[in-house]
Amino acid sequence: MVLVDVRNPLNIGAAARAVSNFGFRHLRVVNPYEVAFANARSAVGAGAVLRNAEKFDTVADAVADCSLVVGTTAAGPRDLQHPLQRLEAGAPLIRTHLASGPCALLFGSEKFGLSNKDMSHCHWLMHIPTREEHRAMNLGQAVAVCLYELIRDPSALAKPEKRRPASAAEVERVTETLLVALRASSYPKFNSSDSFHSAVRRMIRRLQLDTGDAEFLLGMLRQMVWKMEQKK
Amino acid sequence: MVLVDVRNPLNIGAAARAVSNFGFRHLRVVNPYEVAFANARSAVGAGAVLRNAEKFDTVADAVADCSLVVGTTAAGPRDLQHPLQRLEAGAPLIRTHLASGPCALLFGSEKFGLSNKDMSHCHWLMHIPTREEHRAMNLGQAVAVCLYELIRDPSALAKPEKRRPASAAEVERVTETLLVALRASSYPKFNSSDSFHSAVRRMIRRLQLDTGDAEFLLGMLRQMVWKMEQKK
Repeated sequence: MVLVDVRNPLNIGAAARAVSNFGFRHLRVVNPYEVAFANARSAVGAGAVLRNAEKFDTVADAVADCSLVVGTTAAGPRDLQHPLQRLEAGAPLIRTHLASGPCALLFGSEKFGLSNKDMSHCHWLMHIPTREEHRAMNLGQAVAVCLYELIRDPSALAKPEKRRPASAAEVERVTETLLVALRASSYPKFNSSDSFHSAVRRMIRRLQLDTGDAEFLLGMLRQMVWKMEQKK
Repeated sequence: MVLVDVRNPLNIGAAARAVSNFGFRHLRVVNPYEVAFANARSAVGAGAVLRNAEKFDTVADAVADCSLVVGTTAAGPRDLQHPLQRLEAGAPLIRTHLASGPCALLFGSEKFGLSNKDMSHCHWLMHIPTREEHRAMNLGQAVAVCLYELIRDPSALAKPEKRRPASAAEVERVTETLLVALRASSYPKFNSSDSFHSAVRRMIRRLQLDTGDAEFLLGMLRQMVWKMEQKK
């Protein structure tokens, strides 16, 4: 992670935080505004990443030990001399490279991004798929999104909820008790027809109660039945 | 996008910016620190999202028209009463839901996150896969990462570079000219053996030159040859 010509200490701090959140380690800063860099490092809560951030005078020095250099940009492909990849497509290329050697990911200044000279050190460029009409992201947010994409696990699947669906007997007990409660409450539409009972039975089944909730609901209904019968 | 009990105007602004960058529209704020909300809205560059942000007194009011409510948290599953999904797995569930109805995505305060009461309005919770030892993200960065995952296109493929590989004849011209240049420069290892020529030929082919670069290189070499022969 290399920040070039960054001016705002909050952005240096935010970049460092994302580097730490996502388990990366190295933050390098090229030609920072000195006061900003000093402020960021002395900020309360500045973590290990920020304390160990290294300062360089030139992009060439900052990326010297890296065998892949990728720049980030908010510009469209028409404005660029470099191959440009969308983040989703670029990240796998970076991950593949990381198996064989270190990679530098460059971010430019808040106002101007990377200069053409900065970009000339890059093998290719990457952009975050933002809305055409509002492309430029906040620097700290752009860093977080890129690092997230690098660590994201495409095989992470939705965890099935740890549910124990209620048995038919439990669900039927809820249904019966609800019917008793409706009768006790003088529910206007209550009647003993099969079609009314079936409508209530179907409604309860649509709730897909689990064991605990069936019992929870049964207790509530029984209490209400008790109260209503007491009042008679 | 619903921000609950947020205190820092910079975070409200950053959230609004990410909402705009990724093409979402609605920002709702529950019980904000008044000064922060006013400052954020009046900030230079506050976009349409922030100007149209709505303020609510309670979470219930803010999510009333949504048929899915998802909370975000940095906590681990052991501390929670709700089903918890990793962002990669939760986002497809949200996208599927969005086809049939609106969804609220809740973020809590900078210091404490969502309270248990806030979470009780949620159907399930989602977390960003951060490092175990440094889970808590900056609010604006967390918002950006979640929205990015929602708009990310898994089918975005690496664009093949638009290259026109040089023809064998072009590559051979470069090779020949390099050999002439080496001889002219009195390159110590130069010799006319087949094995030396072959080593140079193989090296040039490993460069996988494209048409433009082959010509670029040829021009440079010819100029050097011209200069060296002039000096003789």
